[in-house]
Amino acid sequence: MKAIVAHAAKDVRIEERPVEELGPGQVRLRLATGGVCGSDLHYYNHGGFGAVRLKEPMILGHEVSAHVEELGAGVTGLERGQLVAVSPSRPCRHCRYCLDGLPNQCLNMRFYGSAMPFPHIQGAFREVLVADAIQCVPADGLSAGEAAMAEPLAVTLHATRRAGELLGRRVLVTGCGPIGLLSIIAARRAGAAEIVATDLSDFTLAMARNAGADRVINTRDEPEALSAYNGDKGTFDVLYECSGAPAALASGIAALRPRGIIVQLGLGGDMSLPMMAITSKELELRGSFRFHAEFAVGVELMRKGLIDVKPLITHTVPLADAISAFEIASDRSRAMKAQIAFS
Amino acid sequence: MKAIVAHAAKDVRIEERPVEELGPGQVRLRLATGGVCGSDLHYYNHGGFGAVRLKEPMILGHEVSAHVEELGAGVTGLERGQLVAVSPSRPCRHCRYCLDGLPNQCLNMRFYGSAMPFPHIQGAFREVLVADAIQCVPADGLSAGEAAMAEPLAVTLHATRRAGELLGRRVLVTGCGPIGLLSIIAARRAGAAEIVATDLSDFTLAMARNAGADRVINTRDEPEALSAYNGDKGTFDVLYECSGAPAALASGIAALRPRGIIVQLGLGGDMSLPMMAITSKELELRGSFRFHAEFAVGVELMRKGLIDVKPLITHTVPLADAISAFEIASDRSRAMKAQIAFS
Amino acid sequence: MKAIVAHAAKDVRIEERPVEELGPGQVRLRLATGGVCGSDLHYYNHGGFGAVRLKEPMILGHEVSAHVEELGAGVTGLERGQLVAVSPSRPCRHCRYCLDGLPNQCLNMRFYGSAMPFPHIQGAFREVLVADAIQCVPADGLSAGEAAMAEPLAVTLHATRRAGELLGRRVLVTGCGPIGLLSIIAARRAGAAEIVATDLSDFTLAMARNAGADRVINTRDEPEALSAYNGDKGTFDVLYECSGAPAALASGIAALRPRGIIVQLGLGGDMSLPMMAITSKELELRGSFRFHAEFAVGVELMRKGLIDVKPLITHTVPLADAISAFEIASDRSRAMKAQIAFS
Amino acid sequence: MKAIVAHAAKDVRIEERPVEELGPGQVRLRLATGGVCGSDLHYYNHGGFGAVRLKEPMILGHEVSAHVEELGAGVTGLERGQLVAVSPSRPCRHCRYCLDGLPNQCLNMRFYGSAMPFPHIQGAFREVLVADAIQCVPADGLSAGEAAMAEPLAVTLHATRRAGELLGRRVLVTGCGPIGLLSIIAARRAGAAEIVATDLSDFTLAMARNAGADRVINTRDEPEALSAYNGDKGTFDVLYECSGAPAALASGIAALRPRGIIVQLGLGGDMSLPMMAITSKELELRGSFRFHAEFAVGVELMRKGLIDVKPLITHTVPLADAISAFEIASDRSRAMKAQIAFS
Repeated sequence: MKAIVAHAAKDVRIEERPVEELGPGQVRLRLATGGVCGSDLHYYNHGGFGAVRLKEPMILGHEVSAHVEELGAGVTGLERGQLVAVSPSRPCRHCRYCLDGLPNQCLNMRFYGSAMPFPHIQGAFREVLVADAIQCVPADGLSAGEAAMAEPLAVTLHATRRAGELLGRRVLVTGCGPIGLLSIIAARRAGAAEIVATDLSDFTLAMARNAGADRVINTRDEPEALSAYNGDKGTFDVLYECSGAPAALASGIAALRPRGIIVQLGLGGDMSLPMMAITSKELELRGSFRFHAEFAVGVELMRKGLIDVKPLITHTVPLADAISAFEIASDRSRAMKAQIAFS
Repeated sequence: MKAIVAHAAKDVRIEERPVEELGPGQVRLRLATGGVCGSDLHYYNHGGFGAVRLKEPMILGHEVSAHVEELGAGVTGLERGQLVAVSPSRPCRHCRYCLDGLPNQCLNMRFYGSAMPFPHIQGAFREVLVADAIQCVPADGLSAGEAAMAEPLAVTLHATRRAGELLGRRVLVTGCGPIGLLSIIAARRAGAAEIVATDLSDFTLAMARNAGADRVINTRDEPEALSAYNGDKGTFDVLYECSGAPAALASGIAALRPRGIIVQLGLGGDMSLPMMAITSKELELRGSFRFHAEFAVGVELMRKGLIDVKPLITHTVPLADAISAFEIASDRSRAMKAQIAFS
Repeated sequence: MKAIVAHAAKDVRIEERPVEELGPGQVRLRLATGGVCGSDLHYYNHGGFGAVRLKEPMILGHEVSAHVEELGAGVTGLERGQLVAVSPSRPCRHCRYCLDGLPNQCLNMRFYGSAMPFPHIQGAFREVLVADAIQCVPADGLSAGEAAMAEPLAVTLHATRRAGELLGRRVLVTGCGPIGLLSIIAARRAGAAEIVATDLSDFTLAMARNAGADRVINTRDEPEALSAYNGDKGTFDVLYECSGAPAALASGIAALRPRGIIVQLGLGGDMSLPMMAITSKELELRGSFRFHAEFAVGVELMRKGLIDVKPLITHTVPLADAISAFEIASDRSRAMKAQIAFS
Repeated sequence: MKAIVAHAAKDVRIEERPVEELGPGQVRLRLATGGVCGSDLHYYNHGGFGAVRLKEPMILGHEVSAHVEELGAGVTGLERGQLVAVSPSRPCRHCRYCLDGLPNQCLNMRFYGSAMPFPHIQGAFREVLVADAIQCVPADGLSAGEAAMAEPLAVTLHATRRAGELLGRRVLVTGCGPIGLLSIIAARRAGAAEIVATDLSDFTLAMARNAGADRVINTRDEPEALSAYNGDKGTFDVLYECSGAPAALASGIAALRPRGIIVQLGLGGDMSLPMMAITSKELELRGSFRFHAEFAVGVELMRKGLIDVKPLITHTVPLADAISAFEIASDRSRAMKAQIAFS
């Protein structure tokens, strides 16, 4: 079978790899669609990010849907031919964080396509994937592309739960890449009354408006527009920081009301914070990392028509052209989510 | 001007009353629509409820919309002719609960149409109402009937916030009168993934389904249906108890998962609780009483099309036939929300 | 070895039982001290409580300390001869509640001395106990009696965490048996500023005062004293309901301020609740069931001298007189915690 | 009367000022003791901090106790001659934050001795102070010095409440000036099981141990000692950051367990944060600003002997030598809290 393997920055290859053996409790899947995520792009463009670097070839990919090909011993609840969304999260279920209800903090996590430990955890961009049945959520009624959006959607649902209840709240989203857009969708689904989004690209801002933002601001063109929300100590209840840009964070903090919440989604390096504002307005900065139960929740919400991610999928390329998907996804002036069709 | 005045059980009259004087910070309003609430029905049918009894004639009504007729000195932000939703909640803004962010617990509350203190607080079912400007929320774009739904909607938005975040949660609503239906709508708006509703009336259950319930159960016809959710210690994350019936509460508690939350909306008398289940599953029973900020939130959500209450309004009668509205509203087999058109 | 076995109401016998085999990850313990708990007394006096009934002979006991006699294969962190507090809680660590951080809600719980499933879970009142090493918390520096208090202490620490932060709060404790007294101690340790306790027995109230209550009220002698706290909608932030008496619960609710919290510790039957007060003051009734991490926390707090349970231990009898311990413990006019010295 | 007036950096003078007139609801106080706070030192040493600068002469001081000399019209609950702790916090009680239960975020706050607005808010270091009765908390039984500690104690009680419940938790305090030490005391009072404190000064660390820290680490002498707590993703549940030093914050963050909480107390400038750790461990950084209800809570806890601040008061100088108090307080190698005796 073919797999998409990162060797180094700008050196990603489509290579042959052996199919893994099917064990009990597992399923053999034929990959349907794979979405290119920001971390895939970091490996593709820079060979890693921060202290996380490629040290050996690694199959990329962790946003995937697939069709069930074969059931291992003891597997129930899945059927051959069924479309499933495949969670890339594989916690050990035994460490203290797993037993504490925090599997996304698992000490032995094997998350697809991650160069954080060594040997690296190989990813899911491969024609045939053997996965634990528990990773597979039936996605009947969804397109393969939608099902492959379950992972980034889960990231933003988790972040939204971290923000607390949002019913009738005012939300600011800084940075309108796929995670920013899904944050808009998740915040709206959770009942936000007003959503304002900022970015530097008119293309992404048009998509943000389409995704449900009540107002979009291009902070390059209107650098002062956001400060209109700063009066009386600020307006927004929640800020989803999805840009990784200190300037966006600082201007967002100025527009947050006292006791406002910043959900930090980006995995960046050190970042300078206006500590005086955080202390004096008693803001809360909450990190949000991956997801757990939210993966199945997202699939359910999509299947019920309560969340629609289809408009975010701007490009789909066949496996043979997979490398182009990384180039396309790197260009925020024309692409939102680029996906690879494996079959 | 005419007002709707309760004298005793089954003795509600349309009477002449003087128009109040317009003071600074106030507005004179010409009433548009008034909705009949459960407490109005208690006064109409029984002369009160629990320890709360009519001791003098009292103008009924607290769910009203109106058009602005005149602005008192110093009023800004409102315009003559504008449709407004009028909040019946008038906290003192000075007592310790008002200063503690709990104005719905105000020690000196003057809530329209309430016989709890003596002299009673006169209600809003009158052709001309003088109100504080701060009670009026602009309702441009809404119908007068929708605007008059702001009050019961606020009750359920408040209850929903009391339940905590609902994104992707499973919700049970017992009792599908207006408050039950608005709870369904509010829970869906807050992101509930699954909503099951129970009642004894097929009419209200059909409306519950229309309001967004994924499944409805007539517990008279299917007394065991709900127990299918009891397995593995239960299914639902949240129960909105809107029936006031101990049997509904008990069966709902059995279907709640450990750490599940019961939001108690009804204002009933003493009620027997299965304490063993509450303790051993560590459930939380949370009282919810009226609302505060949620009044304006509800109007905003309706104006943005994020919440639609129109299907709940089943009957609208002219002021001259107002008494019939109380009869209609008392019959849950054919009416949901009955409203009175004042102009 | 000898064990204390309940056959029926008022039929508890000291019998010979075989010593269990020592497996890997386990330790063989020589019991030091066992405390008589309220549920032991229910089996002793009534053969069960509520729907929970003795259906076969069952070794009683779940409040125990012991000395390590032998380590099974692979056990580290414990030493022969060491005094340990033994947690009676044995969750499966695999079910969904265990993985959700709620092991006290485990679907396959094997809690010592519990007649809830059948076959019953045999208890810990036996001279030699084979336990999982993970159940044992080193208790160096404590007396055997103190170490045996770790279990009821854990119950109240768990309840205290359920109540939320208590720093500077006003706390009411209704019912001053061992759980009530430990609630006083835990609430004080968590920073409560004022603690009032009620009971019907002067003996227990004297102990409550000794345990740290700022004021004690004998509601038999002073039935109106508590109502002095009802003004302005109430005084107390938190109520620990440890009496199981509806009258105590009702008077406690009247003395709670709006948004106050009731922690329900007792495992009683159905109980009538003043629902009007719960709804209108927006109170929260939270069930609290057993404990998990709090067992080790309690041992640590005792070892550091931050909690002192010694005054609660009023009686210690040798194993040969164990039956008398049940009689003594049943008499709240003279006994608080009665313990059995096994060695 | 004499007052202590800051004119510029290193230019603080004892000057004559007129006594203010006594209005209704007010009391005239004869100052007993005033404590020198970090912000006073910023004015003394640097003429301000961050963007906050002295622009006109300002009476310093906001940590004061006093004796009641005269009651204005309508004042009840206070007596002539009584020692009171005087809260420097004077919110307007009308703005939206005051009505939202967040008076420390008041839009019109007049906090003693603050150069943030212009004209500056004059402080409390004056022989005769006219204050609102509501600012005065009876301090019978305390020394004047202890009563003057109510303000910094309130700051740390508020921060402790911001941290959530601490019963049995592990706490790290970085920076052991007066606020760090009071954080240790408050965390212990709230039930912390283990408290570790770091600083660069052996003098302050000795005081930290005396205040209740289980372990103190001089990070100058043992730069690696804290990293022993970093294993398995970290140890501490809560970090009180009281140093304002980015290195302390970074090493504290590394030692926090997933979902750990950082309470940020210092009012510094921008600060670089290790965002990768905050996101991936899902930490929460919570600003904490001043206090409100906690002022009276602190006095109550001191009066009941539940908190003892006396050991922190290392120096007391007479008013005539007041300037020396600022020099003493600036030297963390020998002074903790320096106070000025006004009478």
